[in-house]
Amino acid sequence: MSTRGPIASNSSAPADTEPAPTRRRAPTRRRGDAATTRSHLLESARALADARSVPDFTVDDIAAGAGVSRAAFYMHFENKLAICEEVAQTAQAAFLATLRSFERGADLRATIRAGVQSYIDGYRNDRPGMRMTLELAYAEPSVRDLVHETRSTVYGMWQDEFSRAVETGECPPFDVPVVTRLLVGMLETYCVRTTRTDEYVGTGAEDGDGADVVCELWFRSLGIGD
Amino acid sequence: MSTRGPIASNSSAPADTEPAPTRRRAPTRRRGDAATTRSHLLESARALADARSVPDFTVDDIAAGAGVSRAAFYMHFENKLAICEEVAQTAQAAFLATLRSFERGADLRATIRAGVQSYIDGYRNDRPGMRMTLELAYAEPSVRDLVHETRSTVYGMWQDEFSRAVETGECPPFDVPVVTRLLVGMLETYCVRTTRTDEYVGTGAEDGDGADVVCELWFRSLGIGD
Repeated sequence: MSTRGPIASNSSAPADTEPAPTRRRAPTRRRGDAATTRSHLLESARALADARSVPDFTVDDIAAGAGVSRAAFYMHFENKLAICEEVAQTAQAAFLATLRSFERGADLRATIRAGVQSYIDGYRNDRPGMRMTLELAYAEPSVRDLVHETRSTVYGMWQDEFSRAVETGECPPFDVPVVTRLLVGMLETYCVRTTRTDEYVGTGAEDGDGADVVCELWFRSLGIGD
Repeated sequence: MSTRGPIASNSSAPADTEPAPTRRRAPTRRRGDAATTRSHLLESARALADARSVPDFTVDDIAAGAGVSRAAFYMHFENKLAICEEVAQTAQAAFLATLRSFERGADLRATIRAGVQSYIDGYRNDRPGMRMTLELAYAEPSVRDLVHETRSTVYGMWQDEFSRAVETGECPPFDVPVVTRLLVGMLETYCVRTTRTDEYVGTGAEDGDGADVVCELWFRSLGIGD
């Protein structure tokens, strides 16, 4: 595995191991420049993924978007897949961080409201990154594993909440693992389809403002509706 | 557009327009042979898609699976994408046919039970085809449109049912377009994840036998629970 692959690349900037450039050709080259270029390349790939599918843009497009040469791209990433994988990993990590940061409420209803909203926010904060992740998951086993890991984490979070609520009698008993997967699946399709498709256009939840309806269906499904 | 593209190819078998083979090289060649080869090629592509992503198999793999040469493949399809698109179109058409064939029940609960089961059956009847459809939808606008068309049809079917139920007072009023999309989204993720991932393994709805739970959540969401 290349040390420039997406897994190792965050912790060891390629500039550390590059031969020192000659003074004449790059007199002001510093580690900071390399990190900036790298970050511009990642941002360029992410921006391209907002409008296009991965096969529809090239390394040249990514380099051009970052204002650097094709050669500069290959100083930082092995190929297009490597940079796309890193965009996906960053997106998933940020999504999970947002998700984990939500504060539980005074009761299950309040907790659901906060949790559903943080899921929607986390998803919408990085639409291109989430989009690229789901696209790559079809063809790349590593990204597929990443997506399943994220979902497992989300399932685990909600299973804990629901199990606690059943134990304390806050909601009636139910098949927690199955219902959790179904409710999280509903929330995920809502996020995917309001960010990537026009399936909700013209409805009352056109642009991510359907959190109330989603929460209401969760409440009803769990028997904690009005 | 090539007349061998996926749209036109069902109705005009390539054999019709091919120059007649010389007697010496293919004395027994008949139109039926061409149709059989074509169908074997489609079946081979579908079977490959069950285990692999589209980039992970080649025209040679498809031809080998059908027991024909690469040249024979190109007598029937322009390229790998063309045959994959046709597999996707066939899968969506069969899925919709199954979905439309369900019989409405005596009340909304019975109708939901029948409709949800037919959706699950339709999906599971052609797991490789549905999988290929969703994969191609990321990169191919024509397949993306196909998927959205299928979903629109499903949304329309359920919106009609739910609107009728609200009108007759069988269930309380609700935001029909949004709730329909959320409930169908939940059902779709259930089908996708029990056929393509192991996210439900170890739960009580491991292998497509979660229709009862899905229906119960629909009932509760619509306020027609027990």
